[in-house]
Amino acid sequence: MINKDDVIKILRKVVDPELGMDLVEANMVRDVEIYNGTVKITIALTSSSCPLMDKIKSEILNNVKNLQGVNEVEVITTTMSEDEVRKLFNKIRQRRMFQKLPKRNIKRIIAILSGKGGVGKSSITALLATALIKRKLKIGVLDADITGPSIPKIFGINSIPYVLEGKIIPPVSKTGIKIMSMNLIIGDEELPVIWRGPLVSNAITQFYMNVDWGELDYLIVDLPPGTSDAQLTVMQSLPLDGVIIVTSPQELAGIIVSKAVNMSMMLGVTIIGVIENMSYVKCPNCGKEIRIFGDSKGKLLAEKMNTKFLGSVPIDPVLSNACDNGTIEDYNNEEIWNIIEKALDMII
Amino acid sequence: MINKDDVIKILRKVVDPELGMDLVEANMVRDVEIYNGTVKITIALTSSSCPLMDKIKSEILNNVKNLQGVNEVEVITTTMSEDEVRKLFNKIRQRRMFQKLPKRNIKRIIAILSGKGGVGKSSITALLATALIKRKLKIGVLDADITGPSIPKIFGINSIPYVLEGKIIPPVSKTGIKIMSMNLIIGDEELPVIWRGPLVSNAITQFYMNVDWGELDYLIVDLPPGTSDAQLTVMQSLPLDGVIIVTSPQELAGIIVSKAVNMSMMLGVTIIGVIENMSYVKCPNCGKEIRIFGDSKGKLLAEKMNTKFLGSVPIDPVLSNACDNGTIEDYNNEEIWNIIEKALDMII
Repeated sequence: MINKDDVIKILRKVVDPELGMDLVEANMVRDVEIYNGTVKITIALTSSSCPLMDKIKSEILNNVKNLQGVNEVEVITTTMSEDEVRKLFNKIRQRRMFQKLPKRNIKRIIAILSGKGGVGKSSITALLATALIKRKLKIGVLDADITGPSIPKIFGINSIPYVLEGKIIPPVSKTGIKIMSMNLIIGDEELPVIWRGPLVSNAITQFYMNVDWGELDYLIVDLPPGTSDAQLTVMQSLPLDGVIIVTSPQELAGIIVSKAVNMSMMLGVTIIGVIENMSYVKCPNCGKEIRIFGDSKGKLLAEKMNTKFLGSVPIDPVLSNACDNGTIEDYNNEEIWNIIEKALDMII
Repeated sequence: MINKDDVIKILRKVVDPELGMDLVEANMVRDVEIYNGTVKITIALTSSSCPLMDKIKSEILNNVKNLQGVNEVEVITTTMSEDEVRKLFNKIRQRRMFQKLPKRNIKRIIAILSGKGGVGKSSITALLATALIKRKLKIGVLDADITGPSIPKIFGINSIPYVLEGKIIPPVSKTGIKIMSMNLIIGDEELPVIWRGPLVSNAITQFYMNVDWGELDYLIVDLPPGTSDAQLTVMQSLPLDGVIIVTSPQELAGIIVSKAVNMSMMLGVTIIGVIENMSYVKCPNCGKEIRIFGDSKGKLLAEKMNTKFLGSVPIDPVLSNACDNGTIEDYNNEEIWNIIEKALDMII
């Protein structure tokens, strides 16, 4: 006896190549009638002029006729209502939204996140990348801050990426870090990129997929402030290994950083650890540590979110200067490099 | 003799209330035939089941039959093609995008902009609002940073806005500043608002239109970092009197701030002046001024963009503390209030 469930099982293997979805999941199977060894299947297509109709039909025929007991297979096609088509396309869009891009030739992808602007995400990104390349690892930095990119300036990069065989070849920093950023493309670094969310998301996806990153040990993604399009795209589409949270001692910053932390948790992204930046500044005159933004709260934040506290980085006017002059890779404050090295030891 | 142009002129006065566009502009007039005092008009509607069909028809009839020489008017309806409907809706969307919202009962609307995060936009917003209300003016603050709102925390506001007769009644600060912010709505201030651009834009528009701001002398809009949806919505839709730019001495910040300045210029928004924040910190031990982020560049930026330099605000750990504790209105550093007062004198 032919079983209706067996027919359905086979229809689950027939994929509409345009939709990237099987006939059952796409709600295209409308009826399966079985009588005397004849199987009559009714399929609803998205359009009566579906160019793949014949392909889908013949695939159904070929598969179903192999079922034991089947003498004849008949496929009847109809079309979906406008409402059904809309629902299906919404379903596909959502699935694509949550589908991760491939890992490419990159061992680990880590995003640097804070939610709040101005806590020094980009400086921390640059310090981490520089410390990693000193360990003889292959490193790339993807600047996902499309409307406020800082990375090229910090590394002193002015060269424009060029395109070779359809791939964007990223500029390389003095010590060999591959870098991609919106500011490398627009030329004039003061020119605004006035883009609404979908364009921002597209640019980030392209920076990941269309750039020839080659083989990398680490790709570090510098995220802009907020919990909107850029963060959603990076967390949902990029195959992230995790995020490092950058915070500052200010309680106000802590609240906004917590939003980003909670966003990561909601989206199932691993939180690798917390770095506190701008913890204090040493008076160059008398040597006193001044806690400009209040007492350190990074350790508490890390405990609260059950992750590692990776260290406190002080404010150093020389570091700020190195970021302005594009000489971060020559920056030689031993105290700060030690903090960064220790942080790396905890996560690498 | 009836003239075709006269008929068209009349059809320009018939507005489709749903589209907010007249029939000619909406490309709905398909044909006008005139013979022996009879006018036959063919109109294409967006849908065959257009609920306003009768209303539009009778408005055409009533208007055209008053033309001299017209004996009879006949209106024939047809429907637009899908492509035509799409084009029309795009046109409407674009028009709405560039159409300013009404000024309401507000004398001046000023946005605080920096492009770069963490330069202290929200503290400056709060200082300006507090100084203005001390001058016996009626003040509101609209926190347009939907994903990273700081304003309620700075003013120590926990009360939830309530709705009265369809209008949102904003909470009021200790000194009487009306405040609207996303954090007042979501309750838990650490809960992320994971919204893509269009939702962010909608929220800002609603904070402006659906909040009962009453009569105000100044509405100050605190903008998030970036040059994307939030900034576009505020600059394109709100009837702004101008923007005040907040920058910091770091060159890197300067570049990103310049992007926001250029965005304002491109969109024809007046730049009222530049305030430099975080200019230096005074060592509480030895009194030395430490320029953490390098030498002041705010004046130069103001000159470059041909606008006023409104002053340099130093870093003060007590101010940072007041922002964390929600006591900005009690903050009593005379030096900083003098700087803010002087800035106000230049712009008020």
